[in-house]
Order: sequence, then structure tokens, then C-alpha cells
Amino acid sequence: MTRRLLLATLGAVPLALSATSPIDASRLRSRLEELSLCGRVAGGSFADGVSRVAFSDADIAGRALVMRWMRKAGLDPKIDAAGNIFGRRAGSDSKLEPVLFGSHTDSVPNGGNFDGDLGTLSAIEVIEALNAQRIVTRRPLEIVDWTNEEGVAYNNGLFGSRAVAGLLDPGEMDAVWQGVSQKDALKKIGGDAGRIDSAKRSAGWFHAYFELHIEQGGNLDREKIPIGVVEGIVAIDRYEVEFRGFANHAGTTPMADRQDALLAASELTIAVNEIVRGEPGRQVGTIGHMEVIPNAPNVVPGMVKMTVELRDLSAEKILRLGGAVETRAREIAAKTRTALEFRKGSHHGSALADPKLQTLIEDSSAKLGFATKRLPSGAGHDAQSMARMGQMAMIFVPSVNGISHSPKELTRWEDCANGAAVLLETVRRAAS
Amino acid sequence: MTRRLLLATLGAVPLALSATSPIDASRLRSRLEELSLCGRVAGGSFADGVSRVAFSDADIAGRALVMRWMRKAGLDPKIDAAGNIFGRRAGSDSKLEPVLFGSHTDSVPNGGNFDGDLGTLSAIEVIEALNAQRIVTRRPLEIVDWTNEEGVAYNNGLFGSRAVAGLLDPGEMDAVWQGVSQKDALKKIGGDAGRIDSAKRSAGWFHAYFELHIEQGGNLDREKIPIGVVEGIVAIDRYEVEFRGFANHAGTTPMADRQDALLAASELTIAVNEIVRGEPGRQVGTIGHMEVIPNAPNVVPGMVKMTVELRDLSAEKILRLGGAVETRAREIAAKTRTALEFRKGSHHGSALADPKLQTLIEDSSAKLGFATKRLPSGAGHDAQSMARMGQMAMIFVPSVNGISHSPKELTRWEDCANGAAVLLETVRRAAS
Repeated sequence: MTRRLLLATLGAVPLALSATSPIDASRLRSRLEELSLCGRVAGGSFADGVSRVAFSDADIAGRALVMRWMRKAGLDPKIDAAGNIFGRRAGSDSKLEPVLFGSHTDSVPNGGNFDGDLGTLSAIEVIEALNAQRIVTRRPLEIVDWTNEEGVAYNNGLFGSRAVAGLLDPGEMDAVWQGVSQKDALKKIGGDAGRIDSAKRSAGWFHAYFELHIEQGGNLDREKIPIGVVEGIVAIDRYEVEFRGFANHAGTTPMADRQDALLAASELTIAVNEIVRGEPGRQVGTIGHMEVIPNAPNVVPGMVKMTVELRDLSAEKILRLGGAVETRAREIAAKTRTALEFRKGSHHGSALADPKLQTLIEDSSAKLGFATKRLPSGAGHDAQSMARMGQMAMIFVPSVNGISHSPKELTRWEDCANGAAVLLETVRRAAS
Repeated sequence: MTRRLLLATLGAVPLALSATSPIDASRLRSRLEELSLCGRVAGGSFADGVSRVAFSDADIAGRALVMRWMRKAGLDPKIDAAGNIFGRRAGSDSKLEPVLFGSHTDSVPNGGNFDGDLGTLSAIEVIEALNAQRIVTRRPLEIVDWTNEEGVAYNNGLFGSRAVAGLLDPGEMDAVWQGVSQKDALKKIGGDAGRIDSAKRSAGWFHAYFELHIEQGGNLDREKIPIGVVEGIVAIDRYEVEFRGFANHAGTTPMADRQDALLAASELTIAVNEIVRGEPGRQVGTIGHMEVIPNAPNVVPGMVKMTVELRDLSAEKILRLGGAVETRAREIAAKTRTALEFRKGSHHGSALADPKLQTLIEDSSAKLGFATKRLPSGAGHDAQSMARMGQMAMIFVPSVNGISHSPKELTRWEDCANGAAVLLETVRRAAS
């Protein structure tokens, strides 16, 4: 508590930690700030966020910075065929599998300066801190900056980690986005589509995977808890829903004669909210995308396409909720005399964090004097690909007001440094 | 009834009328078919509808056909500065104001072959029929093909008739649409923006204005009544509504923390339907346009922009309903913790048809053996501009299934000819 008070008092002075932690909070901050220049709007400031979509010039510049800092930390960065950047630090027993940790540095358009960046640059800080203390871990360490986590490019995220886990979709290498093929995009960042299979690794190739990340939700910030221990990454079911009514003249079509697809879609939007909130738990349900056709003020909407997205750690629960949504959608279609198409667009299973690794993070946090809270990750992360190959766990730090994917995304410098310190302690223990 | 039965039996054989009416139903049909070629999709048929947006090449071609047929009917077509095509037939008393009638030949994209076309080509048929019978009316007759009734171009309809009535908006001549200025567009069709004021006429310049048009709604078709007598054109209030919540991550934002603008918009959509249907009458209310921002499946919608449109013959009634909608919108905003912007986008007053002219249409129909029904026009028409300058009335014919602004728009040939016959009889009486 004294520690927390001290840091709070010092506010933005990042050297506070250095007295007790080998993490150089000042360098971590200055590197986050320097990285933010890659993809910053012209004339803007750090607070204006960043647009560093994967494979863009800004992304290439950001990756070059990451590799420069890796070399400064004594690592020899290697780019695999999927464009992932790896850096390996030898352990005392080279036959053991490494402890792997890292994150990504691509962003969404108009995103923030912490999502991904914090975990990647903290991984480098961990190496620097071990170097400074001349600690050699028993296991080798391997840090990573994953390719195209956000999936804005090619509308398909976790690209790099899925390539490593052998989870690429058929035909994914043939995708074209904004006139550029996935193959050419990979070439731009030093990858090689022709050898993409060489990026694939075998299950068990690492001993444990850790990822430090901002929470992106408001739980830790609201409860003033500095460290979140992720229980797992939620399962996501996405449904593509289409109501087809009849587009007709808004002036000449009596109310009783209408087959208004937007009226049906509106009823379903409300129903999804009711169904998801109708039982206890942390499940969420979202209608984030809706397309009204023809979308003219004077035409009764003839068609609406919408997505219903459900998330929870329990895949069974969201499957059941999806069934309830479909039942309501059919009732609404009958009532509004619209035709319904309701199909599952995608399913992503949940990825549970390893319980022993969760305990390891809690013990490391306790040693450093940080309170922790277990919570699910509502967002997807490269850690879910790694969960298919071995044990993983994630460390969360607070997002002010829970805002993310926005220039308003903010994690206090103190919380950044705290997260890096917990990552260091956790990795050190896991590698010993 | 025998007449109706005869026509029904003969079906598509359009000569049925010619035995008893001077209207040449066969020529009317063949001209509607020929006009439909201007703006038909390549390789399509009549049933594929038409795209003849004002000022397009298709529109120019259609207007050339209209002028050719006017000349065949002995008229000397004149284009005014607003691009309206007028054709005058002398009466026996040249000092009297003319009886004016006509419609338009522009269409919406992917529109039908009857909206506007029927009234314009029937006006030419009326002249032809009078010529064939060597009838000279006491009053002069003037027929018209109005410019840009639909208002797809420049998003502002009734252009030609508003120019004549002095109802153009300030700055309207400076508008640019699809890279072409309104001035240049007018030049393309023989108008003259520099002299646009010369198109303006004085109140009372015509004795009466008549417009034959398809109903575009399903009342006449459902009740199997061949002729509709329009009581007036409804008033239209359009509101621009914006709910502003907060765009946030769909995975990390708990349901209770959301400020979901789409949830608010959906509640308002349902409320508008309830409010409009909550009292007797023929009023309609439509949310036809909705824009969700950012509109991504995995982002809680931060903003929704939508239009609420209300129509009724009674301007007072829709004003009151608009008030009720705003009250509900404020309640919904409070409940969903969203900010509301609710403002009136536009108001178009109602235009009542002259009661004596309505009776004249009914008498003319009765003479020809047609049942009639009085009804409002839910759609706007050039007749509403003319109502500002003198007395007007409209004749409706059935739209099969009430479909309009669609390739599926259909009025049976028999009903087209019936409408032209009623127009002829009505004009003849009004001009006598």
C-alpha cells in the first residue's frame, strides 16, 4: 500500500519503480512514446493515438524500431515466414524449451498507444533488466512481436500466431486487401508466403507463453487493482442475420401493409440485449453492424443485414444463448412478415489460461506488493493461438475508463511499469 | 360492369377501349414500351424496369422521344429555362388561361415504367384524341413534361414545377451532384440556369392543373377500383435524429457499462411504429435511413444517425405525432445513457386538391362507367407545386400490389387506358 501511495504521489515520474524494480520505467515510457510516432497523425500528439495497421508503412517503421531495441538488448531478431519477429536469449540449459512472451505492435485505425505495444516493449525491458542484473535463466527466453494481430488488414486477425500454430484458413494466403495480396504484404515485412509452412511449430515447442496486455475493459480501473490475472480468452460466436421484407414507398404504403425489415431488426436488437442480460454472468452480446437496404428516408426498408456476436468463457453458455436469440428472431420474423436468414458466421472456442501459471503470476505480483484480480479476457489475443500448442497465461493492467481501440485508450505509466515488473518476475520464475 | 368484364376478359389486348373511347390504348402502350428503352438495363426487358435519372443520357433520350410525339400530335414543344417541356394547343378563346396537364418522365434508379411516364404520354394521347375528333376546346390546352420530379439528381425533387412556382431554394442553382453542376445539367437538357427566373410564372396562369399518375400504393388494386380521385398530397415532416453513446470494445465492455447508440435507435424505431399506429387514420411513419457508426461487428455502436418521416393530409396531426416521437426519444436517451439530437430536417405542407375538380373527375369517370374512390396521395407530385399557383386535381390508376419505385412497378394496360380516357374527358370538360 505504501508502494502504491508512493507511486500515486509521484504521478508521471516514472523513475519511482527503479529503486525497487530492475525495470527501467523511464525507458519503457520513452520507447512507447517513440513507437507512437510510427503512424501518428501529422501534427498530432501522443494523445491523438495511432494508426499502424499491419503491413502499412507505419507498421514497417514500428517493426524496425522493435528490432533496433531488440539488438540493443543483445538479441539477434529473426523474422519467420509469417513476418513474426523473434528474439532468443540463451539459458543455462539449452536443451530445455524456452519461455515465450511478447505481444504485437500493429494497431487498428485510430487506435491507442498501449494495445499490443506495452506487451512487446515490456518483453524487451524484461531482457534488458535481466542483462543489467546479469541473470542467466535456466531455460532460454524467446520474445516475439506477432504479425497482424488486429486483423484490420485482410479482415482476419492473429495472423502471425495462427501461422505458428498451424491455424491459417484455407485460401488465406490468396486474400487481397486494398489491392495488395497477402503474399505481397508479407514480402513487405520480410516474411515469405512461399515458405509459410516453415513458420508452423510443433505443439510443446515452448515451456510457457506469457502476454502482458492492457485490459481494454474497465474492471481493474474501476476497482483500482493494478494487476489482472486472465482466466482465459472468451469464446466468440458470431451470427449473420438477415431480415428480408419488402422495400416500398414510405408515402404510399399503409402501415398495416408494410413488411419493414428494420422494424424486425430493431426488435431483435432489443431482444439480444434482454436475452444476454437475462441471466447472471459476464457474457456479452453485441449488435455492432447493421446494414439497411436501400437506406433511403422515404423507402420502407426492404432488407437488413446484421451481426449478432456473443462472448463468454463458457462456449456452452453462448451456444445456448445463440439458440434463444434464433428462437426470438423467428418469432419476430413471423410477427413482422419478414423472411429470416440466421446462420452462424464464425465460432472461436475459448482458450483457458493454465491454472498453475495464473498462480505464478499471482505469487509474482504478491512479491512485488500488487493486488490482483482474476478475470476473463473479452478480447481475442495471440495467446489463444499459443493455448493450442502449450500452456499460456496473461497479465492485464488497467485501462483508464475501460477505453480501447480509440485514441482515448490510456494506461497510466505507473501501471505500465507495474505490468512489466510482474512480467519480469513471472518469466524469471517460469524459466528457473 | 359489363365494360370492366369485357376489358378483363380481353386482358392485354389494348384495343378494347378504342370502340368506345377516342383514346388509342394500343399507341399509348407502344409508346410506354418505346420510352422504356431509354434507360433500360442492357439486354433487359420491359419487366426489368428503367433507370432514367434526370439529366442523364437516358433522360435526354426520353425527352427527345416525348418532343417527337408532341410534334406528331401537332404541338410545337418549347423548353423553358428550367428544362420543362411545354406544348400548347390553341382553344377557341385565346384570351382564357389554359388547362394544364402532364407529369414527368425521369425515374429513380431501378425504377418502373409507369411512374410519371403514364401521365406524360397520356397527355399527348389526349391531344391526339382531340385532334382525331377534330374537337377544339374553348380554353387553350397546355401539356407538360416536368424536369427532375424524382430529385435523385441533386437530392431535390419537383425541380421543374418548383421553378415555375418560384419555389427553388436559395443556392439550389449552385448545387453539384456527381461532379456536375446544376447549371451544366440544365444546359444538357436545353434549360438555361442564367435565365432560371424566366421559368417562373404568375399565380393563376392556368385555369386548372390535372395530373394522371399511378397510385404507387395498393388501395385501388386491393379494392379493384379503376380510378382514384386524389384528395390532396400529404404533408411531410422529416426529423434528423442522432443518438450518441460511446463506441467501445464488444468483448471487454460489460453490458451494464455500455452506452449503445443502436439499442437506443432500435427502441425509437419501435416507438415510432407504435405512436403512428396508435390512433386511427391514414398517417404513416417511417424510419428508412439508419447509419451505424463505426458499424463493426465487434464494436458497441457509438453513434446512430437516423431519419424519422411522418406523412398525413393533416399537417397538424403529424406535428403532434412528431412531438410524441421526440418525447419518447428523450426518454429512450435517458434510459440508454445516450445523448440525443432531435431536429426537424424538413417540412412540406400538404397540397389539397380542389373539391370541384375532384367532382369533375368523378363525373367524368361515371360517364365512362368507372367506379372511383377518393384517397390521399402519400407520395409527392409536381401537382403540389401547381397547387401553390391555382387549382389542381389528380387522377390515380391502380398499381398492382402497390409496388412502385421498383422494376416490379406495374399498372395493367387496361388501367393505363382507363386513366387516359378519364383524363381526356376531364380536360375536355374543364376546357369547355
